[in-house]
Amino acid sequence: MPSRVPPQPLYVAVADKLEKLISAGTLRPGERIPSVRRTCAQRSVSLTTAVQAYLLLENRGLIEARPKSGFFVRSQFRNLVQEPQPSRPTTKVLPVTVGSLQSRIFDAARMPVVVPLGAAYPGAANLPVAKLSRIMSVVARAAGAAGVNYDLPPGSEKLRREIARRSLDRGLNLSPDEIITTCGGTEALALCLRAVTRPGDVVAVESPTYFGVLQQIEELGLKAFEIPMHPRDGMNLDALEQALKQRRIAACLAVPNFNNPLGSLMPEENKRRLVEILARRDVPLIEDDINGSLQHHGIRPRVAQAYDRHGRVLLCGSFSKTIAPGYRVGWVVPGRYYDKVKSLKTTSTLATATLPQLAIAEFMANGGYDRHLRSLREKFSVQIGQMSRAVVDAFPAGIKLTRPTGGFVLWVELPRKVSALKLHDLALVEKISIAPGPMFSASQGFQNFIRLNCGHPWSPEIERAVNVLGRLVRRLM
Amino acid sequence: MPSRVPPQPLYVAVADKLEKLISAGTLRPGERIPSVRRTCAQRSVSLTTAVQAYLLLENRGLIEARPKSGFFVRSQFRNLVQEPQPSRPTTKVLPVTVGSLQSRIFDAARMPVVVPLGAAYPGAANLPVAKLSRIMSVVARAAGAAGVNYDLPPGSEKLRREIARRSLDRGLNLSPDEIITTCGGTEALALCLRAVTRPGDVVAVESPTYFGVLQQIEELGLKAFEIPMHPRDGMNLDALEQALKQRRIAACLAVPNFNNPLGSLMPEENKRRLVEILARRDVPLIEDDINGSLQHHGIRPRVAQAYDRHGRVLLCGSFSKTIAPGYRVGWVVPGRYYDKVKSLKTTSTLATATLPQLAIAEFMANGGYDRHLRSLREKFSVQIGQMSRAVVDAFPAGIKLTRPTGGFVLWVELPRKVSALKLHDLALVEKISIAPGPMFSASQGFQNFIRLNCGHPWSPEIERAVNVLGRLVRRLM
Repeated sequence: MPSRVPPQPLYVAVADKLEKLISAGTLRPGERIPSVRRTCAQRSVSLTTAVQAYLLLENRGLIEARPKSGFFVRSQFRNLVQEPQPSRPTTKVLPVTVGSLQSRIFDAARMPVVVPLGAAYPGAANLPVAKLSRIMSVVARAAGAAGVNYDLPPGSEKLRREIARRSLDRGLNLSPDEIITTCGGTEALALCLRAVTRPGDVVAVESPTYFGVLQQIEELGLKAFEIPMHPRDGMNLDALEQALKQRRIAACLAVPNFNNPLGSLMPEENKRRLVEILARRDVPLIEDDINGSLQHHGIRPRVAQAYDRHGRVLLCGSFSKTIAPGYRVGWVVPGRYYDKVKSLKTTSTLATATLPQLAIAEFMANGGYDRHLRSLREKFSVQIGQMSRAVVDAFPAGIKLTRPTGGFVLWVELPRKVSALKLHDLALVEKISIAPGPMFSASQGFQNFIRLNCGHPWSPEIERAVNVLGRLVRRLM
Repeated sequence: MPSRVPPQPLYVAVADKLEKLISAGTLRPGERIPSVRRTCAQRSVSLTTAVQAYLLLENRGLIEARPKSGFFVRSQFRNLVQEPQPSRPTTKVLPVTVGSLQSRIFDAARMPVVVPLGAAYPGAANLPVAKLSRIMSVVARAAGAAGVNYDLPPGSEKLRREIARRSLDRGLNLSPDEIITTCGGTEALALCLRAVTRPGDVVAVESPTYFGVLQQIEELGLKAFEIPMHPRDGMNLDALEQALKQRRIAACLAVPNFNNPLGSLMPEENKRRLVEILARRDVPLIEDDINGSLQHHGIRPRVAQAYDRHGRVLLCGSFSKTIAPGYRVGWVVPGRYYDKVKSLKTTSTLATATLPQLAIAEFMANGGYDRHLRSLREKFSVQIGQMSRAVVDAFPAGIKLTRPTGGFVLWVELPRKVSALKLHDLALVEKISIAPGPMFSASQGFQNFIRLNCGHPWSPEIERAVNVLGRLVRRLM
C-alpha cells in the first residue's frame, strides 16, 4: 500500500488503535472502553492526546459518552454498514446531460422552507459571518476609489499574496504572480477546461464527480470519459493509464483531496503517480482543490500540483466552502497555461469583484482565518458523524455509506431498486432537497445513490428530514 | 430621414438653431453671439432654457465664454474637422485575433503611472465613491448571513426589482422574473453569445465594435461578419439585410445606443427595423445597452428590445460605466433564451457576488442614483468636448473626429499613413495608453484610427498627454 504523507498526529494513531480493537470485536457494542486516564498510562500519552483521541472516536461515530459512566462502544454501524464498492463506470465516451437536474437542485436551494441537504454548501452558522461583515464594512470605507475601480486580471495583489503565503501548506511555494483570481471555483474550473480543450475533446473525469463540472463539459461541447473511483483512495490510476493508452484524452479533471461526492482522499504517492502518468502523454491535469483545506484531522493534504515539474497541472481553489460562498472569490494557478487562462478570464467576466477580494485578503491577513479553519474542520467532522448515525438509524439495513476524512458531504448507496430520482421528487414534496446519484455521472449511473450535504449544524429539523427520507426509501423498496 | 423618438427638449432645439447659424457661417469664428437675454427675446424662451442652450453649445465645443464680454464662436474645429466616413469593412467572414492587444491595453490600465486614455472606463472622480462605499459598509453589516451566502441565479431579487422598475425609461415594462444578474456586462454578453451560437457560427457585428466582444467571438470559435456603420446613426441596415440574404448568420450583436467606439446612436425607427429584419429570419439580436443611460442631453434612448414581440432580443446592461466598475454587476434580459442563459450563468460562475448586488440595489432605491446619472451625463458631455478641443489643437490638420451624443469615448481618424499600432507603442513609452483602431475590427481595419477614453475629469496631465500624442502623430506622418 502506498503510504500517506504527511504523517498523522499522535492522537489519531491512538484513536486508530482503539478503532482496531472495536472493529476486531475485542471491544464490543455496549461495552465500556478503557477510561481516559487508563489509556494515558497504557499508551504513554498525555491526557490531552488521550482526550483528543476519544473525541475523534466519538466523531467517527464509534463511541459515545454516557454521563457519569464513561465512554461506551456504540451500536456498531461500522460493522453493520459497509462502504460503497469502488465504482465501475461504463467504458464509453459520453456526451453529458445533467443540466436540468442541477437547475432543480439550485432552485430548491433558493427556497428558505426547504431542508438543504441537496446543494453542497456550508451553513452560514458555520461561517465567520459577523467577523467578515465587519471586515467588509471597514474595507469598503477604507478602500475608497480602489474599491469601486476594476481590479483587472490577475486580480487583487493583496489577495494573491495571502494565497501564495499559505501555499506551503499545499506543498507548493507559489509567487503571487502565478495566481489569477476568479469569480469562485466554478469560474476557475470553467476557464481551465476552456484553456486546455476544444469542442469535441474527451476529458477524463472521476466517477462519481461534481455535477457542476459535468455540466461545464456538456456546455462546452466536450465529452466525458469516466474513471473508476475507490471510495477512500480516489481515482483508479490503472484504469486511467488504460484509458490513456486506448484513446486521445485532452485533459484529466480530478479532485484528489476530498472528492465531491465521495470524500475520498488520494494517497500522496498516488498524486505523484497521477501527475507522472499524465505528463508522460502531455495531458494537462485540472486539479480541483476546493475541499483540500477541510481535512477532519491531521495536517492539510498536499496538492497534486506539488509533484508537477512541467507546469501541466492547473490548480483551482476557492473560498466558497470555507469563508463566504456569496463573495464569489476563487483562484487558479494555471502553470504553463497562465496567459491563456488570463485572457479567457478577461473575456468571460473582465474582472473579479474588487471588495470581496479585499475583504477575504484582510480576513486571511488579520481576521483569524487559520483559527476559523481549525474550528470549521472540527464542525464538519462532527456533522458528518451526526448525519452518518442518523442515516444508519433511519434508513433500512443494507444501505452503504462513505467514511469521508474531509469535506462535508456524505454519499449513500441505497438498496438497488430504490430510484434516487424518484426519492428526490418525493423528498421535494416533503420540502427536503437531496442530490440524486445520476447527477454525478455522465452515464447516468449511481441510480440508487444520493449525496447528503452535511454543511449545516445538526438540528431537529435535519434529524426529522433524515427520518422522512428513511421512510421514503422504504416506500420505494 | 427616420425621425428620432423621443423629441428633444426645448433648449436642445434652441442650441441646434444657433449651431446651424454657426455652421452656415452666419456666425463666424471669433464673433460674439447674441447675448443670453437677446436669445430669450428672439426665441421666446425662458432664461433657464437659453442658459441651458448656451451651456450645451459650449459642451459641443462651438462657443466659449470670455469673462465680462459674453459668448464667442470658437475657432471652428467643427468646420475644420470632419467626422469619419461611414465604415466600409470587408465583406468576408473572418476569424478573429485581437486577444494580445486587449491584454496590453488592460495591463496598461493596471499601471497607476500611465495616463488612462486606453481602456474605456469612468474615472473614480466621476463615480459616487463615498456614497457607495458608505452604502456597502452599511449593507455588509445589515445583510449578515444573507451577504455571505450564495444568491444563486437569477440573482438578487431586490436588484432585479430596481432594474425592472426603471425599465420604462428603456421603453420596456419588465418583471423582475425576466432578469438575470451577471458578473458585469462582459459576462452578460458572453452568456448570450454562448446561448445562441455554436462553434463555427457566424455573428454579424458592427464595424467598428468593442474589442471585448470580438475576443469573445474568437475564444468561442465563432466567426465575425462586419456590418458598416455610420458615425452618427450606427449600423447600416441595408448592408445587414444584404448579409442576411447572402449567408447564414447565427446572431447579430449590436450597440444601438452609443456604440463603442463611435458613440453612434441608432434612430428609433432604425431600431424597429433592425428588430424586424432579424425576426423575419429568426436571427436573435444580442443588444449591448451598456452606454444607453449616458445620453449627453434629452431623455434616455429606448432599447431595440422595446420593439421585440417574439423574445428574440437578448438585452445586456451593466453598472460598470455608471456606478462601480469594480463591483462587477451586470444583467441580462434574455427573452426566450432565459433558461439557457440561466443554466450557462450557473455553470460559468455559479452566482454573482451577493453584497455588490445589494449595495447597488440600495443605491438605486435610496442613494440618489438618478441624480448621480444626470450629473454623470453632464460630466461626460463636458469631457468629450474638452478632449475634442484638445485633440483638434494638438493633432495635425486633416484628422477626423466623431461627435458622440452619449457615452465617454472619442474615435479619431488619423492621417492615412499613420499607424495606430505604432502610435500605441510610442505612446506607451511615454506612459500614455490609447486603444488602437485595429482592435475594433475582426479584419484589422481602422489601421489609422484610435479611441480615446474621456471617462476621467479633464486635467493638466491629460492635456499634456494629448499634446504628446499630437507630436507622435506628426512624427509618424
